[in-house]
Amino acid sequence: MQKGSFTVLKTLTDSQGVSRARAGVFTLPGHDGKPKTIETPRFMPVGTQGTVKAVSTRELKDLGAQIILGNTYHLYLRPGHQRVERLGGLHQFMNWDGPILTDSGGFQVFSLAGLNQIDDEGVTFQSHIDGSKHRFTPELSMEIQRALGSDIVMAFDQCPPYPATEDQVKQAMARTVKWAERGLKYELKPHQLRFGIIQGGLYKHLREQSAREMTAMPFDAFAIGGLSIGETPDLMQEMARHTAPLLPADRPRYLMGVGRPEDLVECVAAGIDLFDCVMPTRNARNGQLFTSEGKINIKNAKYQDDGGRLDPECECETCTQYSRAYLRHLYVCGEALSARLNSIHNLTYYLRIMKEMRAAILDNRFDEWRESFYNKRQIKKPQFN
Amino acid sequence: MQKGSFTVLKTLTDSQGVSRARAGVFTLPGHDGKPKTIETPRFMPVGTQGTVKAVSTRELKDLGAQIILGNTYHLYLRPGHQRVERLGGLHQFMNWDGPILTDSGGFQVFSLAGLNQIDDEGVTFQSHIDGSKHRFTPELSMEIQRALGSDIVMAFDQCPPYPATEDQVKQAMARTVKWAERGLKYELKPHQLRFGIIQGGLYKHLREQSAREMTAMPFDAFAIGGLSIGETPDLMQEMARHTAPLLPADRPRYLMGVGRPEDLVECVAAGIDLFDCVMPTRNARNGQLFTSEGKINIKNAKYQDDGGRLDPECECETCTQYSRAYLRHLYVCGEALSARLNSIHNLTYYLRIMKEMRAAILDNRFDEWRESFYNKRQIKKPQFN
Repeated sequence: MQKGSFTVLKTLTDSQGVSRARAGVFTLPGHDGKPKTIETPRFMPVGTQGTVKAVSTRELKDLGAQIILGNTYHLYLRPGHQRVERLGGLHQFMNWDGPILTDSGGFQVFSLAGLNQIDDEGVTFQSHIDGSKHRFTPELSMEIQRALGSDIVMAFDQCPPYPATEDQVKQAMARTVKWAERGLKYELKPHQLRFGIIQGGLYKHLREQSAREMTAMPFDAFAIGGLSIGETPDLMQEMARHTAPLLPADRPRYLMGVGRPEDLVECVAAGIDLFDCVMPTRNARNGQLFTSEGKINIKNAKYQDDGGRLDPECECETCTQYSRAYLRHLYVCGEALSARLNSIHNLTYYLRIMKEMRAAILDNRFDEWRESFYNKRQIKKPQFN
Repeated sequence: MQKGSFTVLKTLTDSQGVSRARAGVFTLPGHDGKPKTIETPRFMPVGTQGTVKAVSTRELKDLGAQIILGNTYHLYLRPGHQRVERLGGLHQFMNWDGPILTDSGGFQVFSLAGLNQIDDEGVTFQSHIDGSKHRFTPELSMEIQRALGSDIVMAFDQCPPYPATEDQVKQAMARTVKWAERGLKYELKPHQLRFGIIQGGLYKHLREQSAREMTAMPFDAFAIGGLSIGETPDLMQEMARHTAPLLPADRPRYLMGVGRPEDLVECVAAGIDLFDCVMPTRNARNGQLFTSEGKINIKNAKYQDDGGRLDPECECETCTQYSRAYLRHLYVCGEALSARLNSIHNLTYYLRIMKEMRAAILDNRFDEWRESFYNKRQIKKPQFN
């Protein structure tokens, strides 16, 4: 019996067969016994170390973020999952009562930690903070996520690097299946859902095989992993388009770590329901801002006398209360308020385009919305064959 | 005719003659034609570069900050006072419609800038940012503050270093008088008040002389400068107690750059009405938090499992929504939210003790409040002879 209910309100099909955008409602049991509703498609802000960087949870609420992501690897190292559990769980610790999805820690172990050594049992790695030695296994990943008390628990998988040979990808897939089976034996808290992860690199037939293997297991829903790790956006989008329909249509589909605004648009079109990415907050800290007319580098000298609104179409605190000139000044001076106001804007932008897409899907005007998205930004809409 | 109205609602006297605490209402014309009211005694948060570090202006409003400080030296260098004026003035630039006091730039030129050379005409200095050469004169200080459009403009003075010989202090005082005269000739905007600054180092007879000289000039009110620059707190408090009664009782008295919570208490007792200090925000960024029971270093390991409230007596966002353990975690991880939540708490603390002192003065129970302040913190109340 799968946990959480998912209702697809509408699915579109276009003449080319490449648009399968859908709008739905995903309901989770809730860590506090109060069911939580997520309207899909939806973007999940990333709260790596128990905070979405520079943004408060009250602001996240105000921005309309319905679900956020927490990182198992980071929270295991600091402050420690057992400590978080003693302090009442991650929701209470970080003062966020909405749903939280935690990743498995696998991706960070491979990409961020030092000197990782992988075997069939698990991964040994060195902390990126102090070099101390640690070992993750599928069981420990479940134990950590159980202690954190997140609403959605991700299976511990092996994400092969990019580029990777077919053999490397096959080996990682075989491990991912075995690790998934082991993780499934670990009992979670009653409110926690589990998502399996499809790997397969950039090999379509391996994606197909991985989807077959994973969807045969009793997960509550499925994610597409191993993308957006260095391949071109075109290739990423192609793999997402190929893989999404291989996942059950009656469960939410989550594309991990994606991406740029145009990636969200194309992958919503491919039938993806959930996304997460550090891009809106990380780019905000680097002064790169997303607007309805395209990207802006706020550090550019041309904004120093620009008393205008950052994004004329945006109603966020940053756009309505501060000028481009002020935002540039804060950035140039290295002021803490810079990261904060920029993050609020970029998150608002991401959440807004998702909201607009959902409304467009429900109104049968998604293709027009997509055209207008590209036209306003003066970037070319991808062509499919 | 002095600008701004100041009404003293109550002045206390105690048996020792050392408490002259007073509560008042200070009304300014307002940069937007709307009169602004400041309840005194009052603490002014410092917004060095057009932002109170890590805190938004909406939060400052919510905290009850009625007036903030801006730094002439910093804003002259970045983004430039003429730019701020073109962009509508400092209030509009930083989105703060309450009163702003700007310092003269003198203190930073002496303490922060490189290789300063002082002569009777002004000060030549190197920017602390890029080493570029600049020159401040009393006239330029007025021009900058006029362009920024602050509500209170400080006279350009020479603050002698600590320690300084009597001769050094005398020379600085003589310059300060001449510079004050020159500054007074520079026309400000109609809503702008000017404050003169009393110098005199740690020499009581020079403080008396400076007070005589400055109060003879047509300033709207007066500040005590040149304290809290390295001398002991006892000496600072003694000088403030000596100098405050030398200033007109019917105008607000501003003690520049002070100080610790106990300094505020003792200097309110001495009859000071306005204070500013970077301590609440700077210490917040270093993890040092002020509470009703004394200071806390949140980085201390003993807080890592402390799910309790930072300050049980405080109702700020930080105290009501987050635990000590979480605040420690944010600090240890170097998260942006740390500086923000810590600053909100420390500013709340500073503003709250000022509010409590004001209420206690009006209720004739300031001495009891002062006793209880020291008892709760288990620090000794200063003794006077």
